[in-house]
Amino acid sequence: MADEPSASERVWTAAVVVIGDEILSGRTQDQNLAFIARWLNLQGIRLREARVVPDDVAAIGGAVTECLAAYDYVFTTGGIGPTHDDVTVEAIAAALKLPVVRHPEAEAMLRRHYGERITEARLRMARVPEGAQLIPNPETGAPGIRLGRLFILAGVPKITQGMLRGLEGQLEGGRPLLSAAVGAWTAESRVADLLARTQADHPEVQIGSYPFWRDGRTGANFVIRAVEPARLRAAVDALKHALAADGIEAVEGEL
Amino acid sequence: MADEPSASERVWTAAVVVIGDEILSGRTQDQNLAFIARWLNLQGIRLREARVVPDDVAAIGGAVTECLAAYDYVFTTGGIGPTHDDVTVEAIAAALKLPVVRHPEAEAMLRRHYGERITEARLRMARVPEGAQLIPNPETGAPGIRLGRLFILAGVPKITQGMLRGLEGQLEGGRPLLSAAVGAWTAESRVADLLARTQADHPEVQIGSYPFWRDGRTGANFVIRAVEPARLRAAVDALKHALAADGIEAVEGEL
Repeated sequence: MADEPSASERVWTAAVVVIGDEILSGRTQDQNLAFIARWLNLQGIRLREARVVPDDVAAIGGAVTECLAAYDYVFTTGGIGPTHDDVTVEAIAAALKLPVVRHPEAEAMLRRHYGERITEARLRMARVPEGAQLIPNPETGAPGIRLGRLFILAGVPKITQGMLRGLEGQLEGGRPLLSAAVGAWTAESRVADLLARTQADHPEVQIGSYPFWRDGRTGANFVIRAVEPARLRAAVDALKHALAADGIEAVEGEL
Repeated sequence: MADEPSASERVWTAAVVVIGDEILSGRTQDQNLAFIARWLNLQGIRLREARVVPDDVAAIGGAVTECLAAYDYVFTTGGIGPTHDDVTVEAIAAALKLPVVRHPEAEAMLRRHYGERITEARLRMARVPEGAQLIPNPETGAPGIRLGRLFILAGVPKITQGMLRGLEGQLEGGRPLLSAAVGAWTAESRVADLLARTQADHPEVQIGSYPFWRDGRTGANFVIRAVEPARLRAAVDALKHALAADGIEAVEGEL
């Protein structure tokens, strides 16, 4: 891929594992992936893959294990609530061959929160794979779980986002991927050769082409991504000039 | 998983591979997964996994190969347009060790559509792995691609949906998973034991619990899924009775 900044600069990578029958049944539209993707980029970490798996111990364990082997960081969302269908903690513990224990801080937190209304079911939310740390949850109290480079987050977007805020600046990363866009009212197929030439002339950036149809007209946004601001600028300018030379009016930014 | 209808009844499964840097960068919110999930269920096919991978030949090839090995059907979205970043066809052909050829029908279709404005770039949209059939695209002409139990679809939701309409009734499947919901203004943690008991009493259904917070109140929707209408009905009734016995007012349907 074209976003490797240089041979000597490390690129940090991540995967997201979205856990939930409700996503795979189409009941719920996932909203966490796009948020986590943007959040990771601000931390200087590239999201390289995402997987969606059901609330199933084997499926969760398999996806998490494979992603841990392939990427620097892995984030899961979903399945850490108090009900029987929340099996993320036991699935991950089993996959990593760790016992499930009750985290004393999480237990204290839940006992404070629920008082006399504490139940075994509510204490399920204190269960962690042995050796885990807690990730604060500013929204509802029940914490997320960190196990080294694995982050086990809630599935409800507002809670997921609160947990991520608590992790800001804590993960080692590299330089964020910068992006800029050029928009034009043209069919992408009309400018495909021009785009390919610009990409070939600027191998250190990535150029993506995203067509759209709006108000009966055909347009496309071209998104340029790079680590170096000067390289990004050079590729944006080159693309704008190439489009202008072909008689196509282009604006900077997405249409 | 609990949705196996019986030992003698085959369950058909599928995976979706979403292809696109724009999804992994957070620029674009995927809209295809939820649509395909619901569409598959109407065909009697269970979506068991989804993956999101970048516009990268190795990543696409790896995901498609692994999913073909694990599921009955695989659907990809994205990366079949005319521009340099559309590499899905070559990635899949390389992974399956097939040559890339120009499909004569697709070529004829594109030549009719573009007339004198046909270019090599536009003819890229006629490229298929050898042996493939075309999937009609009622929106913009450039077809999708079927290779046995692999379906290579466009990424723009309106086009993806048009291609799926053309496939309706053509895929062998089993019985759709039915679903019903019970909604209640209660914390899911308050009824976790009751839910677990209902699930244990009705092992042939799946019960999912989805909490929400709205207007300062806590609620939860409980979604029950089953193949047999009578089993679905029995589990819904049992859950409603259990909630009522616990003094919790519940409605049928999602709140």
